[in-house]
Amino acid sequence: MQKGKTFIISGPSGVGKSTVLKSLLERRKNVYFSVSATTRAPRDGETDGVHYHFLDVDTFRSWIARDEFLEYAEYVGNFYGTPKKFVDAAMEEGKDVILDIEVQGAIQVCSKRPDTVRIFIAPPSWEELERRLTERGTDDPDKVQKRLLRAKVEFQTAHTYDYFVINDTVENAVNELDAIMTAEHCKPQERMEIISQQ
Amino acid sequence: MQKGKTFIISGPSGVGKSTVLKSLLERRKNVYFSVSATTRAPRDGETDGVHYHFLDVDTFRSWIARDEFLEYAEYVGNFYGTPKKFVDAAMEEGKDVILDIEVQGAIQVCSKRPDTVRIFIAPPSWEELERRLTERGTDDPDKVQKRLLRAKVEFQTAHTYDYFVINDTVENAVNELDAIMTAEHCKPQERMEIISQQ
Repeated sequence: MQKGKTFIISGPSGVGKSTVLKSLLERRKNVYFSVSATTRAPRDGETDGVHYHFLDVDTFRSWIARDEFLEYAEYVGNFYGTPKKFVDAAMEEGKDVILDIEVQGAIQVCSKRPDTVRIFIAPPSWEELERRLTERGTDDPDKVQKRLLRAKVEFQTAHTYDYFVINDTVENAVNELDAIMTAEHCKPQERMEIISQQ
Repeated sequence: MQKGKTFIISGPSGVGKSTVLKSLLERRKNVYFSVSATTRAPRDGETDGVHYHFLDVDTFRSWIARDEFLEYAEYVGNFYGTPKKFVDAAMEEGKDVILDIEVQGAIQVCSKRPDTVRIFIAPPSWEELERRLTERGTDDPDKVQKRLLRAKVEFQTAHTYDYFVINDTVENAVNELDAIMTAEHCKPQERMEIISQQ
């Protein structure tokens, strides 16, 4: 059995990443979508282990001390992180792992695991991203402008990613992500067992 | 329009490469399958520009002198080579190019064009390759053993290829080749125009 690989998928707020990832997970079975750990309190309808692994602050700190996170960050007073153990267990079972994390987290993961594949999902244009952020109606115009600015900053590092998927249509974006995951399993280092048998 | 990319596809005799490539070309349109130039005489049913570009020796030599080949070799008294001009014209039209060439030719192409993607098609095992070579019935046992030995030598360099496709079934092999070609167009350097617009 071939071991799973880890894929980081980053992209600016409003790019349509959740829709694309939902559709990707329907198409590709045998994928573990990583569940983050957090110290923030569960909200109504959130289940431990499904939406987040809910940890108290002492536990979170002890996991940090034992190097049990691939990446973590503090955000408005709460910790968020990607636990290694679930990722590693899935890969051992032959599942590919998807980490939905932003640029800073991606840098942390890749410094620990250089063989992680990084994919950036980008909008077809800034105008289109602004339109999507405005149309979803969750942010006022000021907040939309802040999100756009943040997206432009993130975008500066996009060229360091391994792949660059344009979300012009969900179908195109999912086709490309699906192809990237298949292609990455064809790299010689993924097939050394078969190569060395011959 | 995105420019085409060139993909070298190598693999040992008997691996089933022609069947796989035929099926790949049916699935992916907008692909130019490179036609080699040769100085050998046309055989019955062979058409100039379709099976080969048939050249006389002086013309072939003048093309070599003008660096008009991506790679060339002499084989039992005849020259064979990949003319640059048809490859370049196809890529300018946005077509991907497939070069069906062996390991030595691949090295020549990549020294001139390092952005060429190299894919090695391998059998699931040596036993299976031997079975396929024997079953097609075109070679006597001695010739089969020679082909196997040659395949083992070629295989030594397979780990230097970018991708490694196992032809266990034609469908799997074509799926992987198709995915690799799609994924390669998602590399940041292929999308600099879009990246720099943003």
